[in-house]
Amino acid sequence: MNQIYWQNQLFTFLLYTEGKGLKKKILDCGAGGKTPPLGIFKNYGYETHGVDCSENALEKTAEFEKKHNLNLNIIKCDMRNLPYKDEEFSYAYSYNSIFHMSKEDIKSSIKEIHRVLTKGGYAFINFPSCNDERATVGKKVGEGEYLQVEFGEDVLHSYFDINEAEDNGFFEGFEVIMKENSIRNGIRQNGDKITKGYIDYILEKK
Amino acid sequence: MNQIYWQNQLFTFLLYTEGKGLKKKILDCGAGGKTPPLGIFKNYGYETHGVDCSENALEKTAEFEKKHNLNLNIIKCDMRNLPYKDEEFSYAYSYNSIFHMSKEDIKSSIKEIHRVLTKGGYAFINFPSCNDERATVGKKVGEGEYLQVEFGEDVLHSYFDINEAEDNGFFEGFEVIMKENSIRNGIRQNGDKITKGYIDYILEKK
Repeated sequence: MNQIYWQNQLFTFLLYTEGKGLKKKILDCGAGGKTPPLGIFKNYGYETHGVDCSENALEKTAEFEKKHNLNLNIIKCDMRNLPYKDEEFSYAYSYNSIFHMSKEDIKSSIKEIHRVLTKGGYAFINFPSCNDERATVGKKVGEGEYLQVEFGEDVLHSYFDINEAEDNGFFEGFEVIMKENSIRNGIRQNGDKITKGYIDYILEKK
Repeated sequence: MNQIYWQNQLFTFLLYTEGKGLKKKILDCGAGGKTPPLGIFKNYGYETHGVDCSENALEKTAEFEKKHNLNLNIIKCDMRNLPYKDEEFSYAYSYNSIFHMSKEDIKSSIKEIHRVLTKGGYAFINFPSCNDERATVGKKVGEGEYLQVEFGEDVLHSYFDINEAEDNGFFEGFEVIMKENSIRNGIRQNGDKITKGYIDYILEKK
């Protein structure tokens, strides 16, 4: 399957999961969309599962699965309340997805990820950072929480300070084993400059 | 070929080269080693070429090629003086390699990359940054240039300030179309903390 995935940080996560060597069973929280990154892990022999609450994202994934003759086991579900047993997964991630919630809901979702992970299992979570050019765009509804208009709809975005998540108990029961703080400057197709800021975490369940 | 590559930033470069759509012909400067990333591009149908000045790195690559029944066209050569014609390549990169030279030699090498690239072609280049924990380790031999002991030998490492390369003419004849400044905090196998700082550039030949 010669698909190109744009979610390049998940290749870093793949290195960690391959290095850890637990049972190859992985969960994606926010798994839908046109190029579902669970395909990367499927390609390396993982049993894949995913949840997404967006019908639209699920439809796009269904098209991808049909085109590539794959079944990634992605279901419609809210990541704050996962329909899986405790310690069912070796690995779990939420990539460019979890921050479309309030910080309180993000904390609940990370607790759920912690619950379904086995001891020693790894989680990958990323947030947009205070370095992002959109970090204060939109209607402020909480600390670092902004409603931003996307395709005519108000969409919640939570931005994090560099040490905010670990300092505020978001990773209770986890140890941070990798953290990357990156600022990416690019150019849009129309020539405008763009600055994206992200913080990626790889966590181990204690 | 289900090889895992650890050079995850090159997947970002792959997105750019696929998006650009020029002839699929790519050069790696510093191409040798155990897991030569030219394999990523070969896997997506690119004609690959590479140079490396280290016998040891070339031997490791030869083993990789034999194991995977591949020929990546990697030759022994100094990247400051490339044996290719002007404008022969659409894409070129030097990943985790070019900074093992003095800044003057790095500048010469980037000029060579510029020469062999076609107009509109893309280059990917990365440097360790001043944020790296080793940015001032070793014997200082120039501004940001340090001799560091690796496997009993003095190895030159050049570290860059965040805007140093673009401010000091390293990218003459290029436009910076993507720049990523990242700080990665990790944990070594022995439990020690480690901080790596990198600056990645994607450049377009003007």
